[in-house]
Amino acid sequence: MKKGKLNSIADVAGVTVGHTTLEERLSADESVCTGVTAILPHAGNWFEEKVPAASFVLNGFGKTAGLVQIEELGVLESPIMLTNTFSVAAVLQGTMDWMLRENPAIGDSISSLNIVVGECNDSYLNSMRLMAVLPEHAEQAINAATADFAQGAVGAGKGMICYGVKGGIGSASRMAEFEGQQYTTGALVLSNFGLKEEIAIANWQPDFPAPEKPDGSVIIVIATDAPLDSRQLKRLAKRAAIGLGRTGTHIHNGSGDIIIAFSNAERIAHTSAEALRQSTLLRDDHPLMAELFKGVIEATEEAVYQSLLHAETTTGRMGRTIEKGTFLQAF
Amino acid sequence: MKKGKLNSIADVAGVTVGHTTLEERLSADESVCTGVTAILPHAGNWFEEKVPAASFVLNGFGKTAGLVQIEELGVLESPIMLTNTFSVAAVLQGTMDWMLRENPAIGDSISSLNIVVGECNDSYLNSMRLMAVLPEHAEQAINAATADFAQGAVGAGKGMICYGVKGGIGSASRMAEFEGQQYTTGALVLSNFGLKEEIAIANWQPDFPAPEKPDGSVIIVIATDAPLDSRQLKRLAKRAAIGLGRTGTHIHNGSGDIIIAFSNAERIAHTSAEALRQSTLLRDDHPLMAELFKGVIEATEEAVYQSLLHAETTTGRMGRTIEKGTFLQAF
Amino acid sequence: MKKGKLNSIADVAGVTVGHTTLEERLSADESVCTGVTAILPHAGNWFEEKVPAASFVLNGFGKTAGLVQIEELGVLESPIMLTNTFSVAAVLQGTMDWMLRENPAIGDSISSLNIVVGECNDSYLNSMRLMAVLPEHAEQAINAATADFAQGAVGAGKGMICYGVKGGIGSASRMAEFEGQQYTTGALVLSNFGLKEEIAIANWQPDFPAPEKPDGSVIIVIATDAPLDSRQLKRLAKRAAIGLGRTGTHIHNGSGDIIIAFSNAERIAHTSAEALRQSTLLRDDHPLMAELFKGVIEATEEAVYQSLLHAETTTGRMGRTIEKGTFLQAF
Amino acid sequence: MKKGKLNSIADVAGVTVGHTTLEERLSADESVCTGVTAILPHAGNWFEEKVPAASFVLNGFGKTAGLVQIEELGVLESPIMLTNTFSVAAVLQGTMDWMLRENPAIGDSISSLNIVVGECNDSYLNSMRLMAVLPEHAEQAINAATADFAQGAVGAGKGMICYGVKGGIGSASRMAEFEGQQYTTGALVLSNFGLKEEIAIANWQPDFPAPEKPDGSVIIVIATDAPLDSRQLKRLAKRAAIGLGRTGTHIHNGSGDIIIAFSNAERIAHTSAEALRQSTLLRDDHPLMAELFKGVIEATEEAVYQSLLHAETTTGRMGRTIEKGTFLQAF
Repeated sequence: MKKGKLNSIADVAGVTVGHTTLEERLSADESVCTGVTAILPHAGNWFEEKVPAASFVLNGFGKTAGLVQIEELGVLESPIMLTNTFSVAAVLQGTMDWMLRENPAIGDSISSLNIVVGECNDSYLNSMRLMAVLPEHAEQAINAATADFAQGAVGAGKGMICYGVKGGIGSASRMAEFEGQQYTTGALVLSNFGLKEEIAIANWQPDFPAPEKPDGSVIIVIATDAPLDSRQLKRLAKRAAIGLGRTGTHIHNGSGDIIIAFSNAERIAHTSAEALRQSTLLRDDHPLMAELFKGVIEATEEAVYQSLLHAETTTGRMGRTIEKGTFLQAF
Repeated sequence: MKKGKLNSIADVAGVTVGHTTLEERLSADESVCTGVTAILPHAGNWFEEKVPAASFVLNGFGKTAGLVQIEELGVLESPIMLTNTFSVAAVLQGTMDWMLRENPAIGDSISSLNIVVGECNDSYLNSMRLMAVLPEHAEQAINAATADFAQGAVGAGKGMICYGVKGGIGSASRMAEFEGQQYTTGALVLSNFGLKEEIAIANWQPDFPAPEKPDGSVIIVIATDAPLDSRQLKRLAKRAAIGLGRTGTHIHNGSGDIIIAFSNAERIAHTSAEALRQSTLLRDDHPLMAELFKGVIEATEEAVYQSLLHAETTTGRMGRTIEKGTFLQAF
Repeated sequence: MKKGKLNSIADVAGVTVGHTTLEERLSADESVCTGVTAILPHAGNWFEEKVPAASFVLNGFGKTAGLVQIEELGVLESPIMLTNTFSVAAVLQGTMDWMLRENPAIGDSISSLNIVVGECNDSYLNSMRLMAVLPEHAEQAINAATADFAQGAVGAGKGMICYGVKGGIGSASRMAEFEGQQYTTGALVLSNFGLKEEIAIANWQPDFPAPEKPDGSVIIVIATDAPLDSRQLKRLAKRAAIGLGRTGTHIHNGSGDIIIAFSNAERIAHTSAEALRQSTLLRDDHPLMAELFKGVIEATEEAVYQSLLHAETTTGRMGRTIEKGTFLQAF
Repeated sequence: MKKGKLNSIADVAGVTVGHTTLEERLSADESVCTGVTAILPHAGNWFEEKVPAASFVLNGFGKTAGLVQIEELGVLESPIMLTNTFSVAAVLQGTMDWMLRENPAIGDSISSLNIVVGECNDSYLNSMRLMAVLPEHAEQAINAATADFAQGAVGAGKGMICYGVKGGIGSASRMAEFEGQQYTTGALVLSNFGLKEEIAIANWQPDFPAPEKPDGSVIIVIATDAPLDSRQLKRLAKRAAIGLGRTGTHIHNGSGDIIIAFSNAERIAHTSAEALRQSTLLRDDHPLMAELFKGVIEATEEAVYQSLLHAETTTGRMGRTIEKGTFLQAF
């Protein structure tokens, strides 16, 4: 399938991504090697203009916040924030601070606010117990969002490990096309999963020892400009799981493998004087839906590899070093 | 059905409840009127000795954290913390701080930690945007836990409103009995839902105006000493929804009506040298299971009313006062 | 709330209900006392013009067919058929026969057909093992459908028992109204659940012995002319569970308590030359949605009582007699 | 991973598989080219000795019967029956007939019986509207069950098409091993899905036209002798979806991609005088669980290919012929 111009989730018009990367050697043993990544669904006010969304939990050994309300109401009203496992609270706090400033009525005359925060465990390289991520780092990530964002060992991806080599943030996109109509779908992953012997790249001979560490996780964000509702976006989220599986992982017990999908084709106003709202939806049986399904699988699979391709050899906590995957030259 | 000795969730041996209550008039308009409540599943180390658990989301307009992992692994490894909607991050942080101190290996050699935080919106009485709840308040609530806990306008219940009158924390218990065998089931609610004209107490004539406010929520915690696994606990959680429904609410659109159920009959070790674990489970078709179902319904229903019965007239933000429900003398 | 003109599910324009009732004493011990009920979602071709639908399984000890596809695609493309537990196959067959005749392309050039069949166990009064229901009885029920349908011990309700007295088919409706706008919601139940001491009618003194029998079940069908999609209809289905709970049952282990909800406000064409379809949806936060929620609860609760009110004392298998609930004069 | 002795689902001790294959040319246009396959979970009485089970619906465009009760109670109490889409009713009927004969109390003093029937659409080769499958064919399939069963274009697989070539029944197994402990996991698929250009076999050049037909489906059955409960079996079922995805499909809109997993390590008696039952379960974090996850993925992937490898070129309805995949010599 054809890729988008940027080959990233930012090919979906309006989607931007921002990072805050934290790196500091504190002592012989302790290092900060972590960060925050923000995926913004559009350039407007996310609370006032919600977008249809859904999630699929492939393996729920994870602490992602915000999924309950997405399941009930079928909409996303915040950025999707990514960070390390112990920084969900700080990032939740910082994102709330940011959004409450922008929306003074929330918590006053308007009820509440649902923020989505996904996480992976970077404690092999990052002194996660020190909780170096502060609320302001979430705000910085939001403010830094751009269509031209970095990948690899940046933001929430700074300390992540995937298939025994350096992982992190990766992204890719695909164009669904049929008879002149066209939709864009993008995937962004925070990759922190898999054993090195699992990776599904033919003929790769690993030539370094893999770290001994507990299972990691992966958060996958799918964005599209196709007009889909939450039921349909859940279908896309399930296809992302298929794309993930194609990279080789057996979906480990201890891995939080969670997919969140949204469409920014249509925005749903927080309030309205009208009882009814009009919606335009792609038919499930249209060939463009099949193209979207394929695009999600391909983009997710490639996003995982892009996270490795962009990553750099990184040294962190306890002096541990995780190598960039050398096989990737040939990829 | 017979009630437990305390008629509270603490009749389930080992379960204790602690509150931190925050109350301060800051200015003519702004008041702190909120808090934290901690429900401890047993007296041991919750991470090292997990308990079977499940949740049921009756209406998912809520921000409860921690449910994804409970659904996947079927266990609870933290206290269940309750607070206001904007303080989920602070309470998550404080509970994590507390538990990481007690478990130095988590985030070092051991992977992660899943903390459950439920919330309701108390912004009618509490200046919620000021976020007066700090991480230390979560720690204080945990440390204050006792079987002899207060109900009503305390802890997370300080600023809550239910059926137009003062709500908050309520609890009740029921004994399931059959041929000499006996199990205890307790419910604890954080009540913050419903319109005053909905309450299902016959012949009550409301004699004061109800507040004009957005929909609230309710968090229901079910504990039992019956040996049940997560599949069975989800069945109990659904019965709690029935008990809630009997108090009159139509389960409002904007209400986060969420139930979390656990059993502390059996504890599952975080690590083990053994591949296998032995488990004892109550049969689904046994009369004691029917008694448990009934007990959950009755205890939940009564816990809602107990939250009103124990509550006191409370004045908070903007000088607003919410009355204690006078009908409750006759109840 | 205001009831519809017929106070039945047929107040939702286009919805009709048909019964086939089978009753025959075969021997001293064996009796046929069962039937089929068909709920037709509209007067058109159900396959060509699908309607949004959803289900909620309150307690899944049941054999309802057809729910998997409703969950995935969010539409209903058949009538909702009700019968006894052992006649799901026959009714599935007969409904398929009927629909394949009307739609010659299905299974030829067009792929498949999803039929919904719900069931309750009438084996106390009906010699269920004899499987007296034939495919043609399903066809007859479809052909007999009318807005002016009978309730009580008819159709699939012929042999059902509820709260220890004669149950069966019951229906009720409610009007959701707000500022001149109005929607109709109807409930139809096949009631076969509950112990006589559970029924939530105050001051009723049962004066006859209840049958000793295994747990029964209840199927609840909710119809509305409000424009809702499958996500929203699942919300309605959950409120029907609340209405059921208000009649007193503890939702027994062995009870298949299943709710199916549909809206016929909008029809979705099976095929279309267009990639996109337009949809109009009621906003979740509109007061009319709250009215719908309340209406579903009230209509479901009343539909259960109507099934008892319309039922007649019935004698069936083994010479067993189930009395009409005498308390119902006062209801 | 090591394969079992038979490299089939029958490597799980006690599991057997039986087929009824129907093939007849009725006229120039009409042909019977279909059948029934029965997977028996053990050699005992399935109703009296239930086994833990779960399902995962990857794409729910399917008519599988029996999943509601499996979700609620976590057990399988029948064989898993496979057939064509229009024969679910006949196979449900035949299986019920068989089991009611063996269990005379069901429907008399004992309540009910939940039968699982999965289906795929074979209408390209089979005159599906003629419904050639009769209840007796289900009984024959059960009676024919053996550990040494045929694969390919047999039983329910007779008329199925996969990746544009002849599909049908395929099976494979894997041994999970760790420090001398060992469990067996087997997969059986009814393959009827995918476009020929999707198949993930490198360097295969298709040299014949693919049929123009609607999307198909796939039913995957996973069996294991590892002691797992329903929650854990759902985890296995999700990994089967990953294995399926590795064969290349994009999980088509119109495909019913459904996985059912069971363990026969432990049997749960239908009735018991005891309130409690003892259960032994593999720990989720044990290395054997990781091996099971991998085994499910590998066995599912291979089972799909085995279904093609064993299939034979088949001519059916309208004189249509589906070729055996010639690429498979090199596989």
